[in-house]
Amino acid sequence: MTEFNKSIDKKLVSTGHNKLQRRFYEIRNNKIFEFFVISIIIFSALMIGANSYEISPTTMQVLSILDVMITIIFLIEIVIRFIGEPNKKRFFHNFWNIFDTFIVVVSLIPIEDGEMAILGRLVRIFRVLRMVSIIPELRILINSLVKALPQLGYVMLLMFIIFYIYAAVGTTFFASINPELWGDISISLLTLFRVMTFEDWTDVMYESMTVYPLSWTYYLTFIFFTAFAFLNMVIGIVVNVLEQERQIEADLKNQVSEEPTMQDLKQELAEIKAMLQQQQK
Amino acid sequence: MTEFNKSIDKKLVSTGHNKLQRRFYEIRNNKIFEFFVISIIIFSALMIGANSYEISPTTMQVLSILDVMITIIFLIEIVIRFIGEPNKKRFFHNFWNIFDTFIVVVSLIPIEDGEMAILGRLVRIFRVLRMVSIIPELRILINSLVKALPQLGYVMLLMFIIFYIYAAVGTTFFASINPELWGDISISLLTLFRVMTFEDWTDVMYESMTVYPLSWTYYLTFIFFTAFAFLNMVIGIVVNVLEQERQIEADLKNQVSEEPTMQDLKQELAEIKAMLQQQQK
Amino acid sequence: MTEFNKSIDKKLVSTGHNKLQRRFYEIRNNKIFEFFVISIIIFSALMIGANSYEISPTTMQVLSILDVMITIIFLIEIVIRFIGEPNKKRFFHNFWNIFDTFIVVVSLIPIEDGEMAILGRLVRIFRVLRMVSIIPELRILINSLVKALPQLGYVMLLMFIIFYIYAAVGTTFFASINPELWGDISISLLTLFRVMTFEDWTDVMYESMTVYPLSWTYYLTFIFFTAFAFLNMVIGIVVNVLEQERQIEADLKNQVSEEPTMQDLKQELAEIKAMLQQQQK
Amino acid sequence: MTEFNKSIDKKLVSTGHNKLQRRFYEIRNNKIFEFFVISIIIFSALMIGANSYEISPTTMQVLSILDVMITIIFLIEIVIRFIGEPNKKRFFHNFWNIFDTFIVVVSLIPIEDGEMAILGRLVRIFRVLRMVSIIPELRILINSLVKALPQLGYVMLLMFIIFYIYAAVGTTFFASINPELWGDISISLLTLFRVMTFEDWTDVMYESMTVYPLSWTYYLTFIFFTAFAFLNMVIGIVVNVLEQERQIEADLKNQVSEEPTMQDLKQELAEIKAMLQQQQK
Repeated sequence: MTEFNKSIDKKLVSTGHNKLQRRFYEIRNNKIFEFFVISIIIFSALMIGANSYEISPTTMQVLSILDVMITIIFLIEIVIRFIGEPNKKRFFHNFWNIFDTFIVVVSLIPIEDGEMAILGRLVRIFRVLRMVSIIPELRILINSLVKALPQLGYVMLLMFIIFYIYAAVGTTFFASINPELWGDISISLLTLFRVMTFEDWTDVMYESMTVYPLSWTYYLTFIFFTAFAFLNMVIGIVVNVLEQERQIEADLKNQVSEEPTMQDLKQELAEIKAMLQQQQK
Repeated sequence: MTEFNKSIDKKLVSTGHNKLQRRFYEIRNNKIFEFFVISIIIFSALMIGANSYEISPTTMQVLSILDVMITIIFLIEIVIRFIGEPNKKRFFHNFWNIFDTFIVVVSLIPIEDGEMAILGRLVRIFRVLRMVSIIPELRILINSLVKALPQLGYVMLLMFIIFYIYAAVGTTFFASINPELWGDISISLLTLFRVMTFEDWTDVMYESMTVYPLSWTYYLTFIFFTAFAFLNMVIGIVVNVLEQERQIEADLKNQVSEEPTMQDLKQELAEIKAMLQQQQK
Repeated sequence: MTEFNKSIDKKLVSTGHNKLQRRFYEIRNNKIFEFFVISIIIFSALMIGANSYEISPTTMQVLSILDVMITIIFLIEIVIRFIGEPNKKRFFHNFWNIFDTFIVVVSLIPIEDGEMAILGRLVRIFRVLRMVSIIPELRILINSLVKALPQLGYVMLLMFIIFYIYAAVGTTFFASINPELWGDISISLLTLFRVMTFEDWTDVMYESMTVYPLSWTYYLTFIFFTAFAFLNMVIGIVVNVLEQERQIEADLKNQVSEEPTMQDLKQELAEIKAMLQQQQK
Repeated sequence: MTEFNKSIDKKLVSTGHNKLQRRFYEIRNNKIFEFFVISIIIFSALMIGANSYEISPTTMQVLSILDVMITIIFLIEIVIRFIGEPNKKRFFHNFWNIFDTFIVVVSLIPIEDGEMAILGRLVRIFRVLRMVSIIPELRILINSLVKALPQLGYVMLLMFIIFYIYAAVGTTFFASINPELWGDISISLLTLFRVMTFEDWTDVMYESMTVYPLSWTYYLTFIFFTAFAFLNMVIGIVVNVLEQERQIEADLKNQVSEEPTMQDLKQELAEIKAMLQQQQK
């Protein structure tokens, strides 16, 4: 085989591949293909639900066959999406592509009894999350939620400091009263979270008030601080979102409008003045 | 009877009908008529309330006679509204007209013992909803609530996905601990809704922590995700409503104001410049 | 006594009264007087609190003497405020003046045992509300809260309709299951309010699910509807308040700024044009 | 020693001190130094957590040695910060500096058994709060939270008046029913706070309804009033924050923009008119 032949061979392959890529790219963006995948995901979700009921062995067998089919369909879909991608490197820069591939690959591992069986079931459950990777609106929603997190960073840190200090104080004083609620710092943190959700918090309080009659101050200040910090967090998000909306709107307005600015008008006036001055000479 | 007579007959009928239509249209829009219908609805609501108390057979009989009278009044009212409608086809394009007609028609079915009796009682209860169809402000309110729903669509879908995944995971792990709470996927969904409302959620958690000590992560992440999604939904609505208000205000301002725009001023300046240029020639 | 003498007498009295009115008006607006009254109110509030503890007969006697003194001070204060008022008719147009007078007058009734004793104690408790009538900021706050109520009117009506329908349905189906929760329509309304606050609502639901397994739909739709209506109410208030603030700000801006409007500028341009046209002739 | 020598001596000392001050000032603002202190604080927080678990005597000893080391590091850090401060008087005008110094000084007191031991443990816990004094973003957050408090003043006062009146009324009527919940005014206040958080409030209500069947009005009006006042408080904060943001934005815009104002344009037009009038003469 000569060098020349090799080159042609390569070209042919690449042309063949390009053709395939373009066709698969079209399939990928096809609405019918998308609806088909979504309905398969919904079907797989329903199967998970059905599995939670008591079912006859025959149905069980049918379900396991269907499960294999779903896995195969998902595998084919991922392959189509991968081949359809013009830039192969970019494919794995997308979090959702990695997520989808991971879910499908782990689904391929046959379910046996024991530890792996539960992992297999969990992966099948997480397939429902593929809904997010398929529907663009959900992906956008998740992205905006994730973006909102960092701006909450410092309020969350402050809240954790409040929790930690109260948990340490609570363990110091109440551990001997009820070790199940205040035994060590991690249990105390859980108990404080419970108090924050107002879930039977008075039972916890009344118990510690039998020993320390003033311990209601502990609970009331904690509720006050966390409620206040939480309120601040919510308000912070609202203000931020409103601010962003306003910014987007303002930018849009500036782009669209071809309305002359004050500066333009002043320029015009200056020109008129110059004309008049020339006349007067 | 000749063709000629028939035609005149038709005309007379149609004229008679038009007269009737106009008169009924006036009745329909009459404030006194409206107040009368509203008071009948309130009276029928009070009767439903009275029915829930233990009552003597004589009162029972009085109530059933009153019920027949209310049904007849409602029937007459619907007929007036139908005849009063200039465009008969449009009458059934309005959801509330269909709702009213349905309620009145089903009320006509005599209440007997058994299954139908309960249906009859329910229809009598739903008569209270006629309040909404009569008072325009409530109708507007309901419409705006219904309009707000679709924009929540994707957040609700996301929330359902979160619920479904957690329910499936919960059933997998906790079904053997407490089948009454985690027996199958629909029971698990109900339990998770309960956890979201913070109703005795620690009891549920402590129970599963006896078997899986780390299961608090399951509950805390669930609470965090749903709270976060819920918060986002609320903020989304607030921002949307504010945006709409601003839009309405801006539109109103543009319509009302006859204030010249910057563009107008620039036009004026251009004309002045043209005049000056002509002078200079 | 001649007519002449009578007239002079009247004048003297009126002058004397005017002098008194002016002096009392000054006392009324005196900061020290205000602080004195506020401290008396706080003292009377503390006395009510002290009364709730077990106290020795001697302290009891001291407290009852102090109570008489407080009543006398309040009486004098009201008299000063009444005489100090330039326009006597207006005095009783103010809700808070009527409220204060009523509280003081009822305080004058001596406390005896029996029914009247409890009324006397209640009136003494409501004296604390005099705080609101004395401190202007609190009065403004209450006024703005009362003003916010009507705009909630229709949402509250809608909510009541939802409650009423669900209560009627609940009574129809669940009265036989647990008459203590669903016995008649007023008890059902209370139970539904409890469900709305998420207070042990699952206990109520699980009980009715033993007879009607699908009754969870009843609770979930109820929670959904009321939460949605409540959310709408809150958002409505927020938007309204923001709208008002914006309006106030805009009005303020218009009043303050003497900045020329676009209309002014156009007027100027028209004049310039007229001048140029005259030149060209 | 002559006067001359003394003067030189002083100068040398002051120069030496200045050099030291400058060097320590640099250390203080050093990012590495800051990270080191933060990691020590986190480590001390983890130690507090570790202390809450059962630990072997050896670990106990290690921990107490580490504790001494942390105390020494904190002492050195405070000294560096004090010497690094150019203006010594200002150092104690900062609340956080006083707080830090207090925490470190109290840490120096050796922990013995008894009362002081608990104080020592508490001080060690409050060391975690040093996180706030070190991280500027948290300090800003706390400052803005503290600043938001006064504007809530009157709503909080109003809420307290509502609580106090309801507590007094509750004690009057319900003390004989359940002294543990309504025994005196302070216990009643706690019970009302519990009712406000919806924590088992129906149990409290049902109990008092056995004696006073109409007492549900007491609870429902209380919930309504507090919820309404609370809502108002939240809305007040939201509106205030939005208002401030808008103000800041508007100020920024005014500073940045060199766009001519309407007044500028009018001035220009006036000049043009004057020119034209001169021409016409």
